Amino acid sequence: MDNAEFKKQAHLMVDWMADYLENIENRPVRAPVKPGEITAQIPISPPQHGESMARIMNDFCQIVVPGITHWQHPSFFAYFPANASPPSILAEMLVATMGPVCMLWQTSPAATELETQVLEWLRELFGLPLGLVGVIQDTASTATLCSLLAARESATAHRTNQYGLKTVSPLTLYCSAEAHSSVAKAVKILGLGSDNLRSIPVDSQFAMQPDLLKDAIQRDIAAGCRPFCVVATLGTTSTSGFDPLVPIGDLCRQHDLWLHVDAAWAGSALAAPEFRWMINGISKADSIVINPHKWLLTNFDCTAHFVRHPEELVKALSIQPEYLKTTNQQLVTDYRDWGIPLGRRFRALKLWFVLRYYGIEGIQKHIRVHVKLAQELGDLIEAEEDFQLLVPPTLTLLCFRYRPTGNVSEQTLNSINQQLIESLNDSGEVYLTHTRIQDQFCLRFAIGAQRTERQHVRQAWATIKETARSLPL
Amino acid sequence: MDNAEFKKQAHLMVDWMADYLENIENRPVRAPVKPGEITAQIPISPPQHGESMARIMNDFCQIVVPGITHWQHPSFFAYFPANASPPSILAEMLVATMGPVCMLWQTSPAATELETQVLEWLRELFGLPLGLVGVIQDTASTATLCSLLAARESATAHRTNQYGLKTVSPLTLYCSAEAHSSVAKAVKILGLGSDNLRSIPVDSQFAMQPDLLKDAIQRDIAAGCRPFCVVATLGTTSTSGFDPLVPIGDLCRQHDLWLHVDAAWAGSALAAPEFRWMINGISKADSIVINPHKWLLTNFDCTAHFVRHPEELVKALSIQPEYLKTTNQQLVTDYRDWGIPLGRRFRALKLWFVLRYYGIEGIQKHIRVHVKLAQELGDLIEAEEDFQLLVPPTLTLLCFRYRPTGNVSEQTLNSINQQLIESLNDSGEVYLTHTRIQDQFCLRFAIGAQRTERQHVRQAWATIKETARSLPL
Repeated sequence: MDNAEFKKQAHLMVDWMADYLENIENRPVRAPVKPGEITAQIPISPPQHGESMARIMNDFCQIVVPGITHWQHPSFFAYFPANASPPSILAEMLVATMGPVCMLWQTSPAATELETQVLEWLRELFGLPLGLVGVIQDTASTATLCSLLAARESATAHRTNQYGLKTVSPLTLYCSAEAHSSVAKAVKILGLGSDNLRSIPVDSQFAMQPDLLKDAIQRDIAAGCRPFCVVATLGTTSTSGFDPLVPIGDLCRQHDLWLHVDAAWAGSALAAPEFRWMINGISKADSIVINPHKWLLTNFDCTAHFVRHPEELVKALSIQPEYLKTTNQQLVTDYRDWGIPLGRRFRALKLWFVLRYYGIEGIQKHIRVHVKLAQELGDLIEAEEDFQLLVPPTLTLLCFRYRPTGNVSEQTLNSINQQLIESLNDSGEVYLTHTRIQDQFCLRFAIGAQRTERQHVRQAWATIKETARSLPL
Repeated sequence: MDNAEFKKQAHLMVDWMADYLENIENRPVRAPVKPGEITAQIPISPPQHGESMARIMNDFCQIVVPGITHWQHPSFFAYFPANASPPSILAEMLVATMGPVCMLWQTSPAATELETQVLEWLRELFGLPLGLVGVIQDTASTATLCSLLAARESATAHRTNQYGLKTVSPLTLYCSAEAHSSVAKAVKILGLGSDNLRSIPVDSQFAMQPDLLKDAIQRDIAAGCRPFCVVATLGTTSTSGFDPLVPIGDLCRQHDLWLHVDAAWAGSALAAPEFRWMINGISKADSIVINPHKWLLTNFDCTAHFVRHPEELVKALSIQPEYLKTTNQQLVTDYRDWGIPLGRRFRALKLWFVLRYYGIEGIQKHIRVHVKLAQELGDLIEAEEDFQLLVPPTLTLLCFRYRPTGNVSEQTLNSINQQLIESLNDSGEVYLTHTRIQDQFCLRFAIGAQRTERQHVRQAWATIKETARSLPL
């Protein structure tokens, strides 16, 4: 494809892109396809001869788009949002064209230096302490894995790196019962053993109970284990719980434990000072993860990973073969030593575009609007006798269930709510996911897509009520 | 930014993108900036108020672009290529706009089913055995980590997942002395201990010596270790060595070892049948990694990771919290269980666009042209008395050094060649990296950028000769 043809095709793409975003509300939120439906439309072998872009685009529109779940749809309330804002999309276009691999400073100095600066902007935007330095990882799962690795190596003086885990006491790790599954996944990958992961019970607000954490640590020490890390969560995925950092941080300092803070979703709210109550005690954290690719208008993937002692991360991850040595390594940052992949995309550009285009003001407004919408929805739910609000919105996540009046068993309630969510998602009008709270199956409603306005939340709530009340009991 | 404004801005981006690619040869290949030069031009804090796209784009052009190393430049011969072909860029534009998170089938069925099908296309394109199934990972480093994790768990019947590595015999792993640094990195992360990684010497062609592998395995068994995995490399990063899969595979079968094959760079050549000699014996491989984001015209990041027993990968990586359960999980593939991150970008689309736009024929032509250019360059180097070809091009990687006639010490030769490469890279006309072969510092020349034609290789060679011969001895 020569440059003239590329230019022509790229302009056609832009027309499609603008049209897609303009008319996104006309599409069902969740793809209304059955397993195997897309596969059946794709040939089993690649074509021998090249095909025209017109033909490829036609198939993209006919086969692929109907199978897409539309994360940018204003009625997307599932999981957490993954915003692709216009300035972020524009940056991704530029990055895709230049295609630099940002593993070393030398392989694109601007990518490295912009990453350092933009993460410093983020640190300031979030009101995080001076001295924390940031790096962009692909996801929170990876950032948590890297933090736990650094914690493991720090606790064993890098002995496991050299001789393996066999040579050290069992390393024990602590998180709340509501912590994200990425913690358990990291424990498996790192060879620590799921058996050595302690799940600390939460209180009625879904926050880790520090007294029980203390007991668990002491029990493990008495049993000859080596506690090495606590993962505290700010905004749990299922229930929006906020672990109390002050007492947890004190215990970590006392027992020399690495404190990793997972604020993947809720952290974006820190842009507005009124939500910084959640980081009271953050000065004792060794690492923090926040996902701008969720609520902060930046295209997935873009995870901000802040660490207090980057040298611990680098020491745990650095490998130095001859072909990767450069002449000025003492003067620059080579981010490949800060994560698992060697090659890295140029992710800082979209974050720079977003922060500049919206400014601190624009970001704060975006956050505040959604928190307000969630509060309003919470009030609406509480006003209805046949709905039960299990998790009121601290920020923008609510969990609730339909509980028709009368004597209905818990088992029936679970089954009704399961029907309700399937019916809602099948309708294409709205997309929600579910969770279970003490065995109660409930709807999980997460606000945060950039296009979501009051009308969308109101419409969703009307649909939920109507659908619930029309279900056969 | 409303839709009209987005459309206008995106069309402006396309003009910039087309212009960038049209005039890329006018730019220095490696960014001619000093450490800190970009940083100095970026404010220390994010702006309070939003800024215009015109202003942001202006800074992008003035500050960022001069600090970019141009991987799409036809005179980029460093590391390995990272091609961003036009159809691949077009696909990335669409993906950035839709921004789906492809962790579960349900979160975008088309992304999952297209990934499965396109990886099957790739398997066929590469002539890999039926029964291998593919998944897209971000990089080869991550794919290798996941393979080694699955190997570790498979060897210990998932005991380490549960109880930690302390409960098992020391697990030993084998790769050639020329294997990629990602193997050592994975060993560190997985807690196996660098001490348990055996580096097997290579022969004069930089291929692992299977007799020495056999000896090492036997020695470890006798010492009470548990050999569990061999990593064989097809196309080593430094020296283009190809480990012999037949004898290595036999040893793996005999001792029940996981065979992971790293063909990250060279694997793309498998698209042309005449290069399939390298996979003689591949039927014994348990996993294979090939990077379409290197030589196969697909934007970084896109690593094809093939596994024989995906259930081993899934068992090692799967975590099932309530909020990620969906109703049809028995019928579909949820790729989040095949890798480290939970969230995943929609990477299959660009691969689909590339394979369809170029077809098998187009891909083969692209590979063959570069191999021919490398062979021609090898001949030119051999024809010069004052140059020494240390690694002739099996595919498209050559290593050579300037060796002026007369009695020059090895130390002086190293210093001269170091000067040579710095001088070349500083010129901006060409970008090469180096390696060391038995302590000999040499230039490493990797062909494979889509825009590289005969004239660029010839011009680079002329510049190298001229620069070398003008160096003060």
